[in-house]
Amino acid sequence: MTVSRTICLGFLTLITVGTLLLMLPLATAGEGWNNPIVALFTATSAVCVTGLIVVDTGSYFSPVGQGIVLLLIQLGGLGYMTATTLLLLLLGRRLALRDRLAMKQTLDTAEMANIRTLVISIISMTLVFELTGAFLLLPVFRQDYGSGQGLWLALFHSVSAFNNAGFSLFEDSLVGYARSPLLNAVVAALIIIGGIGYQVIMEGFTWLRHRVRGSQERTVFSLHFKIVTSTSLALLLIGAIALFLTEYDNPATLAGKSFGIKALLASFQSVVTRTAGFNSVDIGGMEKSSLFIVIALMFVGASPGSTGGGIKTTTLRILLNCTRTALQGKEEVTCYQRQIPGFRILKAVGVVVASGFTVITITTLLSLTDPETTFISTLFEAVSAFATVGLSTGITADLSVLGQIVLITTMYTGRVGILLLMAALLGDPSPSAIHYPEEDLLIG
Amino acid sequence: MTVSRTICLGFLTLITVGTLLLMLPLATAGEGWNNPIVALFTATSAVCVTGLIVVDTGSYFSPVGQGIVLLLIQLGGLGYMTATTLLLLLLGRRLALRDRLAMKQTLDTAEMANIRTLVISIISMTLVFELTGAFLLLPVFRQDYGSGQGLWLALFHSVSAFNNAGFSLFEDSLVGYARSPLLNAVVAALIIIGGIGYQVIMEGFTWLRHRVRGSQERTVFSLHFKIVTSTSLALLLIGAIALFLTEYDNPATLAGKSFGIKALLASFQSVVTRTAGFNSVDIGGMEKSSLFIVIALMFVGASPGSTGGGIKTTTLRILLNCTRTALQGKEEVTCYQRQIPGFRILKAVGVVVASGFTVITITTLLSLTDPETTFISTLFEAVSAFATVGLSTGITADLSVLGQIVLITTMYTGRVGILLLMAALLGDPSPSAIHYPEEDLLIG
Ligand SMILES: [K+]
Ligand SMILES: [K+]
Repeated sequence: MTVSRTICLGFLTLITVGTLLLMLPLATAGEGWNNPIVALFTATSAVCVTGLIVVDTGSYFSPVGQGIVLLLIQLGGLGYMTATTLLLLLLGRRLALRDRLAMKQTLDTAEMANIRTLVISIISMTLVFELTGAFLLLPVFRQDYGSGQGLWLALFHSVSAFNNAGFSLFEDSLVGYARSPLLNAVVAALIIIGGIGYQVIMEGFTWLRHRVRGSQERTVFSLHFKIVTSTSLALLLIGAIALFLTEYDNPATLAGKSFGIKALLASFQSVVTRTAGFNSVDIGGMEKSSLFIVIALMFVGASPGSTGGGIKTTTLRILLNCTRTALQGKEEVTCYQRQIPGFRILKAVGVVVASGFTVITITTLLSLTDPETTFISTLFEAVSAFATVGLSTGITADLSVLGQIVLITTMYTGRVGILLLMAALLGDPSPSAIHYPEEDLLIG
Repeated sequence: MTVSRTICLGFLTLITVGTLLLMLPLATAGEGWNNPIVALFTATSAVCVTGLIVVDTGSYFSPVGQGIVLLLIQLGGLGYMTATTLLLLLLGRRLALRDRLAMKQTLDTAEMANIRTLVISIISMTLVFELTGAFLLLPVFRQDYGSGQGLWLALFHSVSAFNNAGFSLFEDSLVGYARSPLLNAVVAALIIIGGIGYQVIMEGFTWLRHRVRGSQERTVFSLHFKIVTSTSLALLLIGAIALFLTEYDNPATLAGKSFGIKALLASFQSVVTRTAGFNSVDIGGMEKSSLFIVIALMFVGASPGSTGGGIKTTTLRILLNCTRTALQGKEEVTCYQRQIPGFRILKAVGVVVASGFTVITITTLLSLTDPETTFISTLFEAVSAFATVGLSTGITADLSVLGQIVLITTMYTGRVGILLLMAALLGDPSPSAIHYPEEDLLIG
């Protein structure tokens, strides 16, 4: 079986098992078996670490059900992070295969051992960050809910944040803690760290170790590291400034608050927008201009090798550099004094085109299944589901069953990736050795 | 002066002269000097063959004013068609310059003579089609308005249609003639012919002549011809079917009409959507799903070398083929057994990225200047202006002055092309001979 099929089926299996578990009577706070659509929606949202919800996680599900949701988040996040990091490392080793989509080779024993080490390293790193996060969040929640419930809340939100899942046990997400500097800082840090991916974290860690030890050794950062960190930072800043400006006077969100709190809220929303899906301001009350900015940021999403979704920061950066190259009339696309391989540019184009078409199709379908919803809310919901962000203007639970099924499909497609899904469905292409003569044509 | 600056300044000059002329007291039906914003908006819309209007062309402007508008449409359309066709033919001759944006060479005498022939050929072809169109439309309008006014209406709408300008002398565009098969057929034919561009028309004409003469000679179609015709046809069909389905039950548009009329209206709307800007159904009454489909079609727009706007059919096709190539794990992007040059792919990426950013920025700005407008109407207006389409849900005249100025800038940017505009503003890049080593990274 090809890697693409393995990944697609793996997620399907996890969602199916999760749905069955969440249907059990002991999973819900109420009596009897759970509504299958609610169970399917929640399981998909958890496994795909999206965070869109049709019921309030904290009150609808029993502690057992909440535990199942958390487990699904953890497995979904770890599975995705491991799979994409593996792909990233295989790149570094320059295997003979140009396109990882069609990866079929049997990995030899040495590589299997490496992979085992890698998986153990990813799991350890995840646990370290999640437990540290929970430990830091504990005082915030213990104050309001006591030790037992406080511990569960701290653990749940730490895991949810690190996996960029966006699930919260509070009905209003984190709006109630909008003014807590500690919670804001810890959650934002977990989201950012979880969203930049294993590879970048490890390179950053190596650099930090060199600095701490006072080593003279220069850390050689990979192109991946440079692109991910600089693009993520730029997007965070642009998002924060844009949202600060557009929401400045909005009484539903920032108006009447002090400059510092405004900056904090705008920055936090910029961080979570890119894929995490928590919110500390009321999304439904935001200006249309802000919602549109958020939609654009959600579409870009996180970085490869992380738990986040979207077209990814690297894709955006490569396409921007293509644009610059086209403007300069050059032919080589470069970034940080490295040339980007041509087939990688094609992949970037493919990701954006396929993602664009998917979002357009999903939005059109949702406009048909739920015509009374405003268009911006529909577009917002479609992009949020596709980029596994999980923010919502509040319409998810009110959508028709058909609309919810469209969203379930969207979350799954967005998670495994539209190109990977197509590769899995279409099977491996037969290689062709025919070369055609070049012919030019006019563009744009 | 570089070609990019010449084109940008040429359009600016035409708009300025047009604005001054339309401000003259004799240009309007009312008394005194015209409102400068109305004059600027109308002149820009006419020169850019967009067709967005803030006043009703037929009643607000005097016959002299209407004549000025028609002249601006003709000059704007011819100017753009000539400039882009020239670029297309230069491609065919494979001049040493890879990027036409930075074209600086002095053309030699032989080439100047060729260009003169080309320009004369384009003008003759335009006049032939426009006069034929006017002749065919004459009976429709003479019936309702008599010979004198009928002739003016026929000429105005023929020129407007061939140039994909979308200006109409009727307050409701062509809704009043929605059931006239002759008008629908003639206008749709003019729009399609005007929208596929000179090069394709000439190749089609050569083919037709061979067929008529019974010549055994096989016509060798260019890659440009094949891509433009097949992509345009596919888009027309997809648009017609999609709009037929989404509007089927809508009482404001298709509901209650016979199957044939429904098909006619949907097909006509699909034709005009791509850049022409007439409408025979009420755009403001369309379903949200339809509006979104129309937005997507508008964004794609017409073909290079025509009077139409948008990212162009060739750009879409190349990016789709890039996606297919990425899925197949290949490296050569091909189309009709021809390889697409790498720098042309970069250009296509540049066009889409720059256009996407422009539309997002414009939509955000319009959401800020006119927050009470619904989001889909704002997005619709932004894309319509950018792709020089001219369809509207009816909000143009009600926008704030600031919003109208944003639209004026958008029409201009969309017409000269965002990449060309940036090239004109930034000046020519200094060529660089530095080659960097390749490094791979993960995408999507
Ligand atoms: K999420
Ligand atoms: K137009």
